[in-house]
Amino acid sequence: MSSDRTDTLFIGKKPLMTYVTSAIIQLATMPIITIKARGHSMVTAIDVAQIVLRKTKPAFEIGDIKIASESLVSSDGRNRDVSTIDISIKRVTS
Amino acid sequence: MSSDRTDTLFIGKKPLMTYVTSAIIQLATMPIITIKARGHSMVTAIDVAQIVLRKTKPAFEIGDIKIASESLVSSDGRNRDVSTIDISIKRVTS
Repeated sequence: MSSDRTDTLFIGKKPLMTYVTSAIIQLATMPIITIKARGHSMVTAIDVAQIVLRKTKPAFEIGDIKIASESLVSSDGRNRDVSTIDISIKRVTS
Repeated sequence: MSSDRTDTLFIGKKPLMTYVTSAIIQLATMPIITIKARGHSMVTAIDVAQIVLRKTKPAFEIGDIKIASESLVSSDGRNRDVSTIDISIKRVTS
């Protein structure tokens, strides 16, 4: 397993703790994971990151956080921009 | 005006474009501003940052993004953790 291996967790409509559990399981074997979400799920993504950090304290920390926009075609055929967030959580090395 | 002068925009329940306008006005005179929000307003904060960048392209860029938790006492007297986000927007220097 290379040390820059990464894994991605997409946040959707499942219960919050489902994602927290998945993230902690992934972090057991990965040095870094990225939590991704868009639109209203961004709140869940931030909550998941905070809960994971609190439950695993002090083993992990927040890495890069990126925000961006994606252009989606909505049901009425118009383009709609939706914001996205990527939060990386990595093992504390010291 | 010192170059590390900063200004803070708290995101609440007003219409999105109110905050976009405030941010652009602040950025006219400040080299860096910080957009702060908590809970569901975090989605608005991220949307505001993206719209400000798009409208002022390429004059500004995203700086640091921080996420954290605050412990609030809810109406039933229990502590409740709420996530917060701070997004800084700064003038592109090159």
